[in-house]
Amino acid sequence: MRAVVFEKFQTFPTLREVERPSPGPGEVLLKIAGSGACHSDVALYKEFAEGQPGSFAPPFVLGHEASGWIEELGPGVTGFSKGDAFLVYGPNGCGHCKACSRGQDTYCENAATMPWAATGIGRDGGMAEYMVTPARNLVPLGDADPVAAAPLADAGLTPYHAIKLSLPKLAGGGKFALVVGLGGLGQVAVQILTALTGATVIATDMKQDAMDRAAANGAVTVPGGPDQVEAIREITGGRGVDAAFDLVGAAPTIRTAQACLAQRGRLTVVGIAGGVTEWSFFTNPYEAETTNTYWGTIEELYEVVAMYRAGQIVPDVERYPLDRFDEAYRKLESGQLSGRAVIVPHA
Amino acid sequence: MRAVVFEKFQTFPTLREVERPSPGPGEVLLKIAGSGACHSDVALYKEFAEGQPGSFAPPFVLGHEASGWIEELGPGVTGFSKGDAFLVYGPNGCGHCKACSRGQDTYCENAATMPWAATGIGRDGGMAEYMVTPARNLVPLGDADPVAAAPLADAGLTPYHAIKLSLPKLAGGGKFALVVGLGGLGQVAVQILTALTGATVIATDMKQDAMDRAAANGAVTVPGGPDQVEAIREITGGRGVDAAFDLVGAAPTIRTAQACLAQRGRLTVVGIAGGVTEWSFFTNPYEAETTNTYWGTIEELYEVVAMYRAGQIVPDVERYPLDRFDEAYRKLESGQLSGRAVIVPHA
Amino acid sequence: MRAVVFEKFQTFPTLREVERPSPGPGEVLLKIAGSGACHSDVALYKEFAEGQPGSFAPPFVLGHEASGWIEELGPGVTGFSKGDAFLVYGPNGCGHCKACSRGQDTYCENAATMPWAATGIGRDGGMAEYMVTPARNLVPLGDADPVAAAPLADAGLTPYHAIKLSLPKLAGGGKFALVVGLGGLGQVAVQILTALTGATVIATDMKQDAMDRAAANGAVTVPGGPDQVEAIREITGGRGVDAAFDLVGAAPTIRTAQACLAQRGRLTVVGIAGGVTEWSFFTNPYEAETTNTYWGTIEELYEVVAMYRAGQIVPDVERYPLDRFDEAYRKLESGQLSGRAVIVPHA
Amino acid sequence: MRAVVFEKFQTFPTLREVERPSPGPGEVLLKIAGSGACHSDVALYKEFAEGQPGSFAPPFVLGHEASGWIEELGPGVTGFSKGDAFLVYGPNGCGHCKACSRGQDTYCENAATMPWAATGIGRDGGMAEYMVTPARNLVPLGDADPVAAAPLADAGLTPYHAIKLSLPKLAGGGKFALVVGLGGLGQVAVQILTALTGATVIATDMKQDAMDRAAANGAVTVPGGPDQVEAIREITGGRGVDAAFDLVGAAPTIRTAQACLAQRGRLTVVGIAGGVTEWSFFTNPYEAETTNTYWGTIEELYEVVAMYRAGQIVPDVERYPLDRFDEAYRKLESGQLSGRAVIVPHA
Repeated sequence: MRAVVFEKFQTFPTLREVERPSPGPGEVLLKIAGSGACHSDVALYKEFAEGQPGSFAPPFVLGHEASGWIEELGPGVTGFSKGDAFLVYGPNGCGHCKACSRGQDTYCENAATMPWAATGIGRDGGMAEYMVTPARNLVPLGDADPVAAAPLADAGLTPYHAIKLSLPKLAGGGKFALVVGLGGLGQVAVQILTALTGATVIATDMKQDAMDRAAANGAVTVPGGPDQVEAIREITGGRGVDAAFDLVGAAPTIRTAQACLAQRGRLTVVGIAGGVTEWSFFTNPYEAETTNTYWGTIEELYEVVAMYRAGQIVPDVERYPLDRFDEAYRKLESGQLSGRAVIVPHA
Repeated sequence: MRAVVFEKFQTFPTLREVERPSPGPGEVLLKIAGSGACHSDVALYKEFAEGQPGSFAPPFVLGHEASGWIEELGPGVTGFSKGDAFLVYGPNGCGHCKACSRGQDTYCENAATMPWAATGIGRDGGMAEYMVTPARNLVPLGDADPVAAAPLADAGLTPYHAIKLSLPKLAGGGKFALVVGLGGLGQVAVQILTALTGATVIATDMKQDAMDRAAANGAVTVPGGPDQVEAIREITGGRGVDAAFDLVGAAPTIRTAQACLAQRGRLTVVGIAGGVTEWSFFTNPYEAETTNTYWGTIEELYEVVAMYRAGQIVPDVERYPLDRFDEAYRKLESGQLSGRAVIVPHA
Repeated sequence: MRAVVFEKFQTFPTLREVERPSPGPGEVLLKIAGSGACHSDVALYKEFAEGQPGSFAPPFVLGHEASGWIEELGPGVTGFSKGDAFLVYGPNGCGHCKACSRGQDTYCENAATMPWAATGIGRDGGMAEYMVTPARNLVPLGDADPVAAAPLADAGLTPYHAIKLSLPKLAGGGKFALVVGLGGLGQVAVQILTALTGATVIATDMKQDAMDRAAANGAVTVPGGPDQVEAIREITGGRGVDAAFDLVGAAPTIRTAQACLAQRGRLTVVGIAGGVTEWSFFTNPYEAETTNTYWGTIEELYEVVAMYRAGQIVPDVERYPLDRFDEAYRKLESGQLSGRAVIVPHA
Repeated sequence: MRAVVFEKFQTFPTLREVERPSPGPGEVLLKIAGSGACHSDVALYKEFAEGQPGSFAPPFVLGHEASGWIEELGPGVTGFSKGDAFLVYGPNGCGHCKACSRGQDTYCENAATMPWAATGIGRDGGMAEYMVTPARNLVPLGDADPVAAAPLADAGLTPYHAIKLSLPKLAGGGKFALVVGLGGLGQVAVQILTALTGATVIATDMKQDAMDRAAANGAVTVPGGPDQVEAIREITGGRGVDAAFDLVGAAPTIRTAQACLAQRGRLTVVGIAGGVTEWSFFTNPYEAETTNTYWGTIEELYEVVAMYRAGQIVPDVERYPLDRFDEAYRKLESGQLSGRAVIVPHA
């Protein structure tokens, strides 16, 4: 079968023929419907390096946002029918520690000794005609479009997890949420916040068209610039926001979000730009929390799929056949994609 | 001034001239904007009886859903301007026990020795030209219409409190809520659930027009009848609802709600029809909770007002001048009101 | 190998030779350290009946409270060393639904179509020299005594789960908990409550020696009798208890617990005596919740083991060799056991 | 009457004769039992400055940790008997905003326009023979010693509030808490954590005797030094602590606490040394929260008193007559006090 393979550290992936895999015990073989191209793929093939912690060694097939149809069941797997459509929870932990037991493989206690982090990150992922995954990682899609669903596995689940943990801060009337950075995850964050809370959702980005899309999803938008914080606080009646989500994570965006927080608010840095900021007792509004986040749980992916099927999350995707995968990544690298590129191997 | 006075046990109230009150220490005098007529007023003047626990002795002015404008400040009160509009939190506890300290006078630990439960229940309420209330019970309305706001003090706060305590059950995607009984409080419950959660809101009532209004507010409606429970469970994919609110509280409605609950769901009986139902380990879905509720807290009334000002709660009111108060109560008694009757003394 | 087999509906189990099982994909073979004899085993062999829902068909080996040492790994299992000691999470769901994904196989969404509920309930359990279990069901015991640990798999996890869900009600100073029924699970409940909360733990039972043991574990005890409720409420200053646990579940014990609840309290019926009680708005203290519970999650079993290893839970066990299993069950049936009987096949 | 008056910015307070105050509307006059000397008093008389935000202007009587007996009731106050003992909740907000309505005057929304923050901070406090306080700020002490209780109003309530908000992180078995800084508040923090949770409480300080006292209260102690973080993490099995409390708040102590956090842990900076630290996505354990805290609520002070009356908090106090107040403050300034100095005006 054909697959997009990360072959060598710091090298652009290649499309080539590989052997179709066989599902092992507890696993299934999926015929791939779609596989999203994610910024972290770019980071992976550009920045992973020999001997660096967290850099899984090539070769492996990319694609940690995958969906598909059951093709074959591995030993010990029952309860699935060939042809049924599923979204794949990417993270693959040891499967038997405390974190894995609750379906949060992202925090697997044996991660340090695992040869991979996820399908598509260390082990073969979904940028191929077929993929193997543990059966417990499958979330049923029913009759919903599996291609548009693919990016939800990360671009949906990551903001969902961050927002789910912040829902207590947004519970009830008169609350305010802030989304900083309106790329793919930011747009989904606006959709989730609008659907799941009664909060006024304030959104900000440097690009006007990104703000227009957020506004169409129900957000109140505020442009960047020197008056940004003041403008955001004014919308809240001066009080600040109850929950902020920084989808960028650069020092200036973190500082903006910090400056907008209400007492007892919560800032979640989702974006991995790696900004370093200062924290002090006297600048932090009382009881405001600062935290970060990483992907999500299997159970939460069920909830993301429920929102997708209910029309509460509408992924914005561009479909590419497998042999144009390079175009998708090149556009992603140069910021020319407005939606998520999804590779469709069997189009 | 003129006031609607509950003068004698089990006797319809009368409109008569009474002395305009003066605010005591910590109190304010309000010029009344509106005062809602509530089913519990009817229960009060029909069923309260001498020496019966919870039956506060007449005479007192009715009206526990009141709004108005600051007219005069009592000793020790500062921080208010004459003419500013407020909604009144009705419950009046001792003011210095643990429950009152958190703004939940409804559960005042000294309730048994208090001569009243609320303004309009034991002490003079809002069915008059003026009313006195503790200053801490005032929730600012800003420039929102104070007349339509009046019923929110009970018909808004009561379902809000019940729903707020159930929000953890409805947090996230793929959840289901059920509202049984679509009178005034039921309609507000639908509005609150639709605004504050992403849940599918299922609503049921015996009256088609009530269901039509609920549907217009975003609910999926299911009629009564032998297939009711099955129809509701089917909407949930067989799983049952995560939170149910019974605004009636009769034995059959409680049983219907119980039968619709999902594992780990929560049933809140809000209505006071006093139905008695059975509970057993083997009929209760695992971890499903059954509870009741009573009114709410001052802080929650702030949140109700925020929802009202944001257009998330739109009270359905019919305005009556003070001298037609009897018509309002007579219609309420005979079920001829579709919205809440609000007495407007200064129209 | 020898095993205690439930051979026929409504028939006392027999010790006989069976084939030593082989671990399937994702499974391990354990050499059994201990296997607790539980009241529900008695119910199982006395009351299960052909064609009755929930009655899994014999023959199968009993024992859903099992611990042991790794003997052999099935296909696809890695990360375990032969000889390491584990406690076994008994419930076995489909492994790939939403509930199973969070490690709560007890609420497996495919339970209705599963041929078993747990190891020892429908599939072969731990009353044998060896047992097979899914690898993800293993909770490491380290160097703690695996024999005394065995009953924690149910007699520890069941009260732990009920208490964990009630901890928000017991958080902070000045709280009160009530434990009704001081058999094995009740004693563990007292230990858990004493360790994990600052609440005054009130305990009640008909037997004085059970109360003495509870008192030794830090409980304040109240005997049964006509003044029981009044005596319990008096300890709480009249307010009632914030969380009650009924380990019996008969109508009179549920009623006692209900009568002791504080406003905003929580009653969890843990015991399965199947009592039917009444619930009504006007007898339920405001916002008091009534619920039931069933076993627990894998993650919680990790927490139970942590408490065991820290000496916060001290199981009271009596050890029996395999060939005296019948004595253990006979004593259990006749109420002659004070601690939990644990069958030790390799003593 | 005699009172310790802060008379001039940046000037040591003086004991002098002042007029005995009269309670206003909603207030009571207390005969003072005890009044704790707090580090923030020292900061107040040394650092408050004309025109500086948060610097309330002298003259006023010090003492924000006060207890006493009812002496006289102001207009509108009922439900108290002369001679009854109470602890005083110090913060005094506007009394009618959302925050004050829930008994959290510390976050009064009108704080910026209030002439004081608390009794003893901007308005006359408890370092006097008598003091006036709003009646709703009184928490009954029953027959417990009111002198030893006095410091609980701040030195008890402040750590209690921080811990209460962290209890969800410490709920269940196998949890770890860290207390950095074992002065008065740190010792109380250890007592509260030991009483209210099952967590292993790790405590650290530069002084051996402070660690000895913490150990006597049930903590595992770890000395400072280069191996401190490693030693703390080792106690947790490498995982880190679920909740950390930094009672110092200097940059090095915050950094130590950050370095000890587990994934999903929570760090609360309680101490006001004003240290500035760095925060970045890649150094923060996933989902670990950093926050600060300020004093607490009236309701929480009830819970602190319940713990005091139950012997779960045992304040370590040294009693001083009013005319030796200066000795108490001098010793406090120079770090010679091991317990809390309580001024006893009527000894």
